[in-house]
Amino acid sequence: MSTNKLSRRPLVAMSEPTSPSTPDFMSISPAEFFYRNRQMAGFGNPSVAVFSAVREMVENALDACEDARRAPVVRVDVHSLSHDRIEVTVADNGAGIPYEHVPEAFGRVLYGSKFATRQRRGTFGLGVSMAVLYGQITTDSPVIVHTRPPASTGRRYEILIDIEKNRPVVESVTDMLRPQEGTTVTVRLKGDLRNRDRIVQYLRLTSVGSPHARLGLTIDGSEVLDIGPATRVLPTPPVVTRPHPRAADLELLRRLVSTRPTTRLRDFLVSSFQQVGRQSVSRFVQFASLSPSRPVGTLSRDELAHLSDALQKYPGFGRPDASSLSPIGQEGFVRAVEQVFSASCVKYGARRPAEWHGNPFIVEGVVATGDSFPSSDVPQLYRFANRVPLLYDAGDDALQRTVKRIDWKRYGLGPDSRFAVFLHLCSTRIPYRAAGKQSVDTVPEIEAETTRLLRSLGRALSRVVERQARARHESRRRRSLLKHLRLIAKFSASLAGIDEPPDVRPLVDGLFEASDDD
Amino acid sequence: MSTNKLSRRPLVAMSEPTSPSTPDFMSISPAEFFYRNRQMAGFGNPSVAVFSAVREMVENALDACEDARRAPVVRVDVHSLSHDRIEVTVADNGAGIPYEHVPEAFGRVLYGSKFATRQRRGTFGLGVSMAVLYGQITTDSPVIVHTRPPASTGRRYEILIDIEKNRPVVESVTDMLRPQEGTTVTVRLKGDLRNRDRIVQYLRLTSVGSPHARLGLTIDGSEVLDIGPATRVLPTPPVVTRPHPRAADLELLRRLVSTRPTTRLRDFLVSSFQQVGRQSVSRFVQFASLSPSRPVGTLSRDELAHLSDALQKYPGFGRPDASSLSPIGQEGFVRAVEQVFSASCVKYGARRPAEWHGNPFIVEGVVATGDSFPSSDVPQLYRFANRVPLLYDAGDDALQRTVKRIDWKRYGLGPDSRFAVFLHLCSTRIPYRAAGKQSVDTVPEIEAETTRLLRSLGRALSRVVERQARARHESRRRRSLLKHLRLIAKFSASLAGIDEPPDVRPLVDGLFEASDDD
Repeated sequence: MSTNKLSRRPLVAMSEPTSPSTPDFMSISPAEFFYRNRQMAGFGNPSVAVFSAVREMVENALDACEDARRAPVVRVDVHSLSHDRIEVTVADNGAGIPYEHVPEAFGRVLYGSKFATRQRRGTFGLGVSMAVLYGQITTDSPVIVHTRPPASTGRRYEILIDIEKNRPVVESVTDMLRPQEGTTVTVRLKGDLRNRDRIVQYLRLTSVGSPHARLGLTIDGSEVLDIGPATRVLPTPPVVTRPHPRAADLELLRRLVSTRPTTRLRDFLVSSFQQVGRQSVSRFVQFASLSPSRPVGTLSRDELAHLSDALQKYPGFGRPDASSLSPIGQEGFVRAVEQVFSASCVKYGARRPAEWHGNPFIVEGVVATGDSFPSSDVPQLYRFANRVPLLYDAGDDALQRTVKRIDWKRYGLGPDSRFAVFLHLCSTRIPYRAAGKQSVDTVPEIEAETTRLLRSLGRALSRVVERQARARHESRRRRSLLKHLRLIAKFSASLAGIDEPPDVRPLVDGLFEASDDD
Repeated sequence: MSTNKLSRRPLVAMSEPTSPSTPDFMSISPAEFFYRNRQMAGFGNPSVAVFSAVREMVENALDACEDARRAPVVRVDVHSLSHDRIEVTVADNGAGIPYEHVPEAFGRVLYGSKFATRQRRGTFGLGVSMAVLYGQITTDSPVIVHTRPPASTGRRYEILIDIEKNRPVVESVTDMLRPQEGTTVTVRLKGDLRNRDRIVQYLRLTSVGSPHARLGLTIDGSEVLDIGPATRVLPTPPVVTRPHPRAADLELLRRLVSTRPTTRLRDFLVSSFQQVGRQSVSRFVQFASLSPSRPVGTLSRDELAHLSDALQKYPGFGRPDASSLSPIGQEGFVRAVEQVFSASCVKYGARRPAEWHGNPFIVEGVVATGDSFPSSDVPQLYRFANRVPLLYDAGDDALQRTVKRIDWKRYGLGPDSRFAVFLHLCSTRIPYRAAGKQSVDTVPEIEAETTRLLRSLGRALSRVVERQARARHESRRRRSLLKHLRLIAKFSASLAGIDEPPDVRPLVDGLFEASDDD
């Protein structure tokens, strides 16, 4: 039975006389879904909406610069049009957007970059179109996109979304010079500046997550921030990799099979997946009891289910390739924390690449001390996922929970400690708990790696705490010794009839220098 | 510029030579979005998935029974197929599903009941199709739907989802007798029974949220639960109402205008919205400085934006009609808490209908005491939204936060108190924080009403706590009085030479009865 015809027909309710209220059925577009449930994507009320709009636009801008392999320069301008109308403009120096993609990139929910196994800030094609949708339903203003891709001079678009059909409505297109390549996006929305501090904090943390970027912020015409870059080194661009066999759920497997059904199983596995070579494939087909020469298109449904199961369970595959990831790295991470938070970094640490459900991930972090951190016996946590700072919903976040489970007293932290932990999780797939991308879901593998990283950071921290305690102790001993030697010197001098007692400080300094060398 | 053609074209990346890695753009279907982000919808790992599947299927079953205006009888059967394969079957006595809707209702994400302003458990058309999708990608099994709508004898479907296209793939259809009207749905998925207790708790709480329902649960063939109904009274079915004018964002307004552009503004407002009558409309058009006789189709975009703004700001409209809501109500709520938790109910309370962004809502609740509640100086909270119990993600939930902000010590709660609060929020729109529908977003109006309800429940609670304390005190006084009077009686008897002293208890009882009457 084909259902294609059905799905095209307008769907009107059956009105059976005996069924008093059979509901009307209909299909809703993803734009409609997120219009009805905009709080799920971070657009629940005007104050949060301004923050979310800035955030989504900045993420897009940074991704655009990195696609173009340029050091990002991103300027954010937030402007109050009235007491409850805000205009947000974000400009980047990326490679612009090819004109034919502009309408859908902004006027269609769930339109974005392909399902490539590679780390990116935005992945859903949801964020910016949500800002456009929210702006449209609250101020009736279209998004204004002024972009200049290579080999052109610039074009300006005004775009709305047909929410019921999830399609862009282009209100106007004009050729308009943009001095350099890049994109400038303007959204007008109902909102206020109650979350001003969050926006500032978000950008400061963004410059930690992307220390090679320069970020500017003006609010109502006054410059509020101009930070970065903390490093001139551009990150190695993450590479698109083949999926890991442990990520081969049935859906993925079926899609891969449908692209080349005549390929033999052995060749299919080697060419479709990473970590599957000539040798490991022989061992694997034995493990799975499948014939290596079967064309994959001839595998029955049960055999395909069995193959998927075996791929996920076989213990012999190597860890996923981490070249699809782009960690912040020691130099940039440490410098940015030092600069942005006037902190001194105690230690940088990174775990080896690990995986969850076949998705590679790396957890890295920095412990820092500084007067800008609150004093507490649990360090202040700053969370990052794929370089994006997470500012809300810490309560249910897996990283936050892991930090709380650590017994920080063991590492010498007392109630007056001023320490902060910066944790960065990067992965080809971040298990966000909601479309607003503010907290990470519970994944045992990620929590285990985070715990190990935190312990090693904790040990480094305890050495610093110890050293600080020892230094305080030494300084007390030194002062006491100095005091007593001075009295002895004075007494000896008066005994010897000398007016001026000898200076004992060089003696004490000498003593402590000797002990420092130990 | 029309973009219809664009959106139909296969979308291939531009490969500009000067842009090193312009990403491939593509549109993804909502099924694909939730396939990639299944943790957002409650299907992040096998243990949670079993719980979520039960939950979504039970909600659908209860909605189906209520659409048919029958006392729901819902049976859940959870069966282990192997150590990591589970089969969940849920059967209801609703009115069945019209055959032509079956494929899409189960094989299409975001296919559901129309955008009607009326309280329902499920509203997105997301839940059951997520269970089907998860079952399919983990076990390759189709969902099995056996339904019997009125005037037919039953039909059995096997359905998969084409995830890339978000379309049902019907694997088989067979006419098969189902003894009664209703629907039986079976999903096979990767999972385990680690969340067994949650499933049991979910169903116990569901029978509190729907006290007119009978719910059964068997796990691996053994009956685990058979509860309810706590009341024979069916709830008054919520009525579909016109939207409230304060819900008139531009999108809604534009849709309404497009259905009858020639209607005059005055008539348009009266017929489109609730709480707008002949008199209030005159005052409103004056407030908005618009001519009441303009055909709405002639309103310019700016005028429409102005109208939307004025509708949301005008203070003269009445509160939204609450007939679209279906609170649990005192009788059923109290009885169900008493039966399911062997508790004694201290007090039921309900707030008057209020609104958030034009959506009507009611908060109602019960305070109960009983040995099954943990002893604590903050009462245990059980949350419900549109009769559905919320079991996860309490940390960020607005209801939970409101309970924590109350100073329960003021109401006499000590560390040994065994009290629980059951809170039910019902609304035509619940602001869930994520698609998994486990926690309520921060909405000031909802929190304010909840706080007021909790205070009045708290006062009732403090009267009970006081009465209990007074009773303990009285009982001590009574025992002491009895002891002393007995000694006096004995002494007086021996003085008077009487062997048997008189019984003083009637005297004491009389004293205390008199004081009880005060």
